[in-house]
Amino acid sequence: MKLFDKHKNILDNAVKALHERTFFAQYPEHPSPKIYGENADAEGQENFKRSLNNKFEELRQANAERWVGSENSPYLQDALGITYPAYEPETIIKSAQKAFDPWRKTAVDDRTGLLIEALENLKTQFFDIAYATMHTTGQGYMMSFQASGPHAADRALEAIAAGYEELNRFPESAHWDKPMGKFNIQLSKRWRAVPKGISLVVGCSTFPIWNSIPAIFGSLVTGNPVVVKPHPGAVLPLAIVVAAIQKVLTENGYDPNTCMLAVDTHDEPITKQLAESDAVKLIDFTGSATFGNYLEGIKHKTVFTEKTGVNSIILDEVENLDKVLQNLAFSVCLYSGQMCTAPQNFFIPENGVKTPEGQVSFDDVAKRFSAAITALVENPKAGPYVLGAIQNQDTCDRLDDLRSIGPVWLASTTLENPMFKKARTATPMVIELSSSQSEHYSKELFGPVALLIKTKDTAESIHLAQKLAREHGAISCGAYALNADLKYEIEDAMGLAATPVSFNLTGGIYVNQNAGFSDFHVTGGNPSGNASITNPEYVIKRFTWVGFREPAV
Amino acid sequence: MKLFDKHKNILDNAVKALHERTFFAQYPEHPSPKIYGENADAEGQENFKRSLNNKFEELRQANAERWVGSENSPYLQDALGITYPAYEPETIIKSAQKAFDPWRKTAVDDRTGLLIEALENLKTQFFDIAYATMHTTGQGYMMSFQASGPHAADRALEAIAAGYEELNRFPESAHWDKPMGKFNIQLSKRWRAVPKGISLVVGCSTFPIWNSIPAIFGSLVTGNPVVVKPHPGAVLPLAIVVAAIQKVLTENGYDPNTCMLAVDTHDEPITKQLAESDAVKLIDFTGSATFGNYLEGIKHKTVFTEKTGVNSIILDEVENLDKVLQNLAFSVCLYSGQMCTAPQNFFIPENGVKTPEGQVSFDDVAKRFSAAITALVENPKAGPYVLGAIQNQDTCDRLDDLRSIGPVWLASTTLENPMFKKARTATPMVIELSSSQSEHYSKELFGPVALLIKTKDTAESIHLAQKLAREHGAISCGAYALNADLKYEIEDAMGLAATPVSFNLTGGIYVNQNAGFSDFHVTGGNPSGNASITNPEYVIKRFTWVGFREPAV
Repeated sequence: MKLFDKHKNILDNAVKALHERTFFAQYPEHPSPKIYGENADAEGQENFKRSLNNKFEELRQANAERWVGSENSPYLQDALGITYPAYEPETIIKSAQKAFDPWRKTAVDDRTGLLIEALENLKTQFFDIAYATMHTTGQGYMMSFQASGPHAADRALEAIAAGYEELNRFPESAHWDKPMGKFNIQLSKRWRAVPKGISLVVGCSTFPIWNSIPAIFGSLVTGNPVVVKPHPGAVLPLAIVVAAIQKVLTENGYDPNTCMLAVDTHDEPITKQLAESDAVKLIDFTGSATFGNYLEGIKHKTVFTEKTGVNSIILDEVENLDKVLQNLAFSVCLYSGQMCTAPQNFFIPENGVKTPEGQVSFDDVAKRFSAAITALVENPKAGPYVLGAIQNQDTCDRLDDLRSIGPVWLASTTLENPMFKKARTATPMVIELSSSQSEHYSKELFGPVALLIKTKDTAESIHLAQKLAREHGAISCGAYALNADLKYEIEDAMGLAATPVSFNLTGGIYVNQNAGFSDFHVTGGNPSGNASITNPEYVIKRFTWVGFREPAV
Repeated sequence: MKLFDKHKNILDNAVKALHERTFFAQYPEHPSPKIYGENADAEGQENFKRSLNNKFEELRQANAERWVGSENSPYLQDALGITYPAYEPETIIKSAQKAFDPWRKTAVDDRTGLLIEALENLKTQFFDIAYATMHTTGQGYMMSFQASGPHAADRALEAIAAGYEELNRFPESAHWDKPMGKFNIQLSKRWRAVPKGISLVVGCSTFPIWNSIPAIFGSLVTGNPVVVKPHPGAVLPLAIVVAAIQKVLTENGYDPNTCMLAVDTHDEPITKQLAESDAVKLIDFTGSATFGNYLEGIKHKTVFTEKTGVNSIILDEVENLDKVLQNLAFSVCLYSGQMCTAPQNFFIPENGVKTPEGQVSFDDVAKRFSAAITALVENPKAGPYVLGAIQNQDTCDRLDDLRSIGPVWLASTTLENPMFKKARTATPMVIELSSSQSEHYSKELFGPVALLIKTKDTAESIHLAQKLAREHGAISCGAYALNADLKYEIEDAMGLAATPVSFNLTGGIYVNQNAGFSDFHVTGGNPSGNASITNPEYVIKRFTWVGFREPAV
């Protein structure tokens, strides 16, 4: 049975979901033994332990020029000691170029079937990937499983489905029959979706899988060979994914170098050399604005970026302030604010927030918000697992500098993780600022920081949230407002700043979360990034429509 | 009756045609009195004459700051003397910004209906536009009518249809219902296609309408106000189009400045000031690589370009050499080679071209090709009308410089036009080059120039055609080959260079022609331009998908 036929049902569901944008998940998000197998978790943990201080030998790419690795676990604050096959940039480019011809000539259906097969196989490694993600990013166990496993696989499937649809958007051929009066001109026409060339996917240290595999599968389905360059601090999760893809490739007679892992170290980075190679036509990047802007500026490349943003919460009126503040406290605590969607700037009018019980003053909101964070942090069943660990020491160091910028409603401290005594942790800090202190809140302060910004009124809050999104980018926005006109005003203002808005969230759904097949992640319309996962542009730009015609016989 | 309902049938047919890519035309290409009215041609000519040495007062845009105009007729070699309302760039930007809010808030259906109404009205002015095009571009009468009238209107309709489809690609709202085990999380979600902002459409001197109105209508349908900046040498055709759009806008209660004409002169150009304005988010440009590259390099803009290219003909084997050479002679003569799709480099193997009668030597091909051109040029019923006039004296001047680069098989001369004794004309020149003289054939030589390049064999011809397209861009390619493997090889090589190929054209269809709803014009995948009329990217990039969500009630 052809892989395409085997997985046709998954593809059809995915394409349908892409358009309906209602809830859809191919991969269950709960790490349940009933779904994933009784021993799956234990085996995943075991596999992770076995990989430590060893060569990673699952890849099918051959002829390693050397073995390198420099990962550290934020939970163990110790080196993982895993090494990966490494190559000179020229070797990588040559290998990818060689893999290009057979891959681009593979029928779209065959590429699609093979890539879904790879995802289905990957499902059996979700726990391996989860532990690899924990010990490179510092994410909590649940987020590591969900964000790097089922959620990421769903977003990859989404990219496959979007690509499949675009590749079939126009007919392979058509008979063009133009009446000219006394005779007709008849042409036989054909069209090809020509892949652009080598696709470089540059991973990040905090979400190595979720942010990268839509790009990997989006480029592969459209016929481009992919070079995966992980962040040197978070290689293992991507190594597992690339190995799974290479396994399916080789088992089906394709060159494993169709999807290559290109590992480097902090000391000897190779991203620029790869990115600037003439043969590299596509670049996907998640990370700093500085490096993202550099990549966007390289001529003759199609570049997809997710960079930094400044996310706002607009507080005007609520039905239940405690529920709102609990929800926001969770958003701030989740992975210690190390999410591109985490809220940073909380705009609160100087005369407070409207509630059914009357106006609650700015100071009371600040106090109760800080208390909600403390309650979550100090809950031993939740705190350590929601906060996880801090990926990079720089994030902790930055917190010190912030203490002096305004009144501190809640100080950051460390939090003991009962399972990992050495974990690098930092609890959220809450700082008050005036709306005039834009020099402090007009940039991304990556990590567990909430700025409560006192505004004249909600109109000023909206104005500032829009301005920040337009000038510095924003990936999410939360708004608490009950008046319909005001909600429209917020929607319109943030819409113009190309920033999605979540209104009045409480309970178990958070502004940080973006669901596959429903929420476009990043819009591409403000400085936080030029790409959106997964809108049509995300796959269309990976190939070119070229037409061929000749007189019909 | 709403305009959308009135024109729903046209829209449906256009969307269908876009996908089938078989022959479709909403606007008949023949300037027949039966179709367009007995007096339409005479009235068009009369209207043109009346406009000479007068203010152009059809625009609804108010408060002209001054009246300017500097057009010259290539047929009369005399000033047209028409002046147009002109404004400072800041005035234009402010006016467009003011028009943005009501236009973006107009329902997609209403925008679509109104724009099709504008095209339908424009149909009654096709002859006005034809004479305006003749006397600014130098195109022959038939091309002026077709390319600026029905063909352009079809391409504009195509952009409307593509835009309409993309804007309706995702639902306006959805109910998202996620099972969480013991409860469900339910969100009410909405999406908006948010227009990017002011769209600047920069016209060119040779195809002011055909190259510009897909952009104008593509930007308008997606909700962006448009500033049309014509080439100072070809204002009148676009002025008529903008006036027609403004008439429909005002009649339906919209701000005429939703589509503004921004006229400048050679001495005081305003394009850079407009392009660099923060408020301008979209730029469409047709013209030189130098200026196009500058525009592409401006940060934070979405730029659509058609620049220069080097188009090749690959000659390997033919069924009927005379028919082939007649076809190619026409392609070279048509509008004196001033088309972006005109062939320039003819790659011919040193041992000649295969025919059923045996190999025809390089020299014989050159001789017979030159003779075919001469026959067409000297045919009094065809020559002057096919060649038209030369838009810009620089094009004639450049021909002089070329005479020394290689053996001249056919010299360029002037050609008397019986209707316009003063017309600026130049017949095609044919020059032989060796494949080693890449310095001469690796750039666009705009105008009536055919280079016959002697190659070792067809493999070298393909190699060079691909290399030129990749490095310098190409918009068209013609190939004459009968062997199936060889055809595949050409298709594959030129496909990788993102260049469409027309195989074995003879008779009344030419490599220069691209048909609306069927042929993508420019692919966007090589240096000849980054945009393609009309692929999905051409409209998708004019707006941003933004999502909004809140707990379902």
